[in-house]
Amino acid sequence: MRAPLTYQRLLDLIQQRQTMLCVGLDTDPERIPACLRNEPDPVLAFHKAIVEATADLCIAYKPNLAFFEAMGPAGMECFARTVECLPSEALCIADAKRGDIGNTADRYAHAFYDVYGVDAVTLHAYMGRDSVQPFLGRTGKWAVVLGLTSNSGAADFQEKTAADGRPFYRHMVDAALSWGSHEDTMLVVGATRPAALAALRVDFPQHFFLVPGIGAQGGDLEAVIQAGCTSHNNLIINASRSILYASSGSDFAEKAREAAQDLSKKMADLMTGRP
Amino acid sequence: MRAPLTYQRLLDLIQQRQTMLCVGLDTDPERIPACLRNEPDPVLAFHKAIVEATADLCIAYKPNLAFFEAMGPAGMECFARTVECLPSEALCIADAKRGDIGNTADRYAHAFYDVYGVDAVTLHAYMGRDSVQPFLGRTGKWAVVLGLTSNSGAADFQEKTAADGRPFYRHMVDAALSWGSHEDTMLVVGATRPAALAALRVDFPQHFFLVPGIGAQGGDLEAVIQAGCTSHNNLIINASRSILYASSGSDFAEKAREAAQDLSKKMADLMTGRP
Repeated sequence: MRAPLTYQRLLDLIQQRQTMLCVGLDTDPERIPACLRNEPDPVLAFHKAIVEATADLCIAYKPNLAFFEAMGPAGMECFARTVECLPSEALCIADAKRGDIGNTADRYAHAFYDVYGVDAVTLHAYMGRDSVQPFLGRTGKWAVVLGLTSNSGAADFQEKTAADGRPFYRHMVDAALSWGSHEDTMLVVGATRPAALAALRVDFPQHFFLVPGIGAQGGDLEAVIQAGCTSHNNLIINASRSILYASSGSDFAEKAREAAQDLSKKMADLMTGRP
Repeated sequence: MRAPLTYQRLLDLIQQRQTMLCVGLDTDPERIPACLRNEPDPVLAFHKAIVEATADLCIAYKPNLAFFEAMGPAGMECFARTVECLPSEALCIADAKRGDIGNTADRYAHAFYDVYGVDAVTLHAYMGRDSVQPFLGRTGKWAVVLGLTSNSGAADFQEKTAADGRPFYRHMVDAALSWGSHEDTMLVVGATRPAALAALRVDFPQHFFLVPGIGAQGGDLEAVIQAGCTSHNNLIINASRSILYASSGSDFAEKAREAAQDLSKKMADLMTGRP
């Protein structure tokens, strides 16, 4: 049984490794290198190789549940085995984007925290406090609530304006971050919106922000770190496709390592020298 | 391969059976009657018995994914078998409340529509159009988007006020219902808010509304039907715990049938005589 990944332990890990990198596991079975196709579970074999190649270069992994669910019940077995193969010092974020009424949220929290043993779960907070509450208040466990997302659809609802002139997503953030603390809640802010990231950082200096959207989605790493970093370095920056599919050949693990190394080196350079 | 459950076929089914009842399968393994505990898969055995007892008394079933996920990978196998045991004429709504960016939403749509073969999936639309789009435009398949929910947490965000004086949830509804049509999109409106239901029905006369929250959550059936019904009878009203746990003894199926019968009879009386 490893020690819980508390706020301070995560900060220490980022400091030690000089990286904020989270490797997203959004694995499309059709994009797995041909050399793994004959493995009993090719996706699991791919994840093991990616994890082995990147374990010392990141601080978190983020398996995306949709990709496991699309493989049917066997996919959830693969998810369980994937979680087991992650290094014990890294944060495991189930990118599940769940969100339901209290008694159902209880079941989701039990599923992810206790049955699958992950550290953190991404959540929709649209249904309010009782939908997030079961994920809070457990040392080293994290509710990662959606604030402003990196996709084009963020304009359809999140960025519309409320009565006080602020966008809807700011109301979502204010509500969702009021239920817990920076010790059990993180916020998702897309890399494609650095100005919003900077504004949120001013109001929420302590919370970890999970930032997806660099790489394939077009977010700029330097802008994200400039906007979102404090002296705490309390950012977790996700990259998925640019690492997973750095090569489709038998050198995929080596190329994934190079891609992770490249990102982590850039992060270290941008972190260095901050107050 | 059965015929797709189109808008018209659902209306016809409601008319024929004179019920709008959806039976929610939110099964807590600890509440299964003792007489089923020695079955190889007690939850599946319970679902088969409940479905057999209610098949002619409802028009839909709504398995709640959280309860299956909390059982680990075997729970998803149980979900698959549960979907298979549903009567072919009934709508199967996966109560999954998913919602993610386009390429991930594609995987969720594939998982639920193609791998598990359900007809409908409940969705968070907070992430905008690209998060719902993959669920639209397939004959007899349904995106069931969250509008105003039945839980206490609805007050925390959904009922706050936008710049035009209308609540946030109305903006969510307007956006989400603009992406598809009444032939591929349904709306979730909680039974605990009949006045809101009535107002939404004025603006959206055609869409099916899925209404959870009668029974254990306190919603009133008569108020719901008065507020939400049109001459189309395009409402789907869910009850879960009041049917599933009508008895914890060996007469559980019989008592579940009685509870479903009681609800359906009330629905038929309230539907009768409407224009």
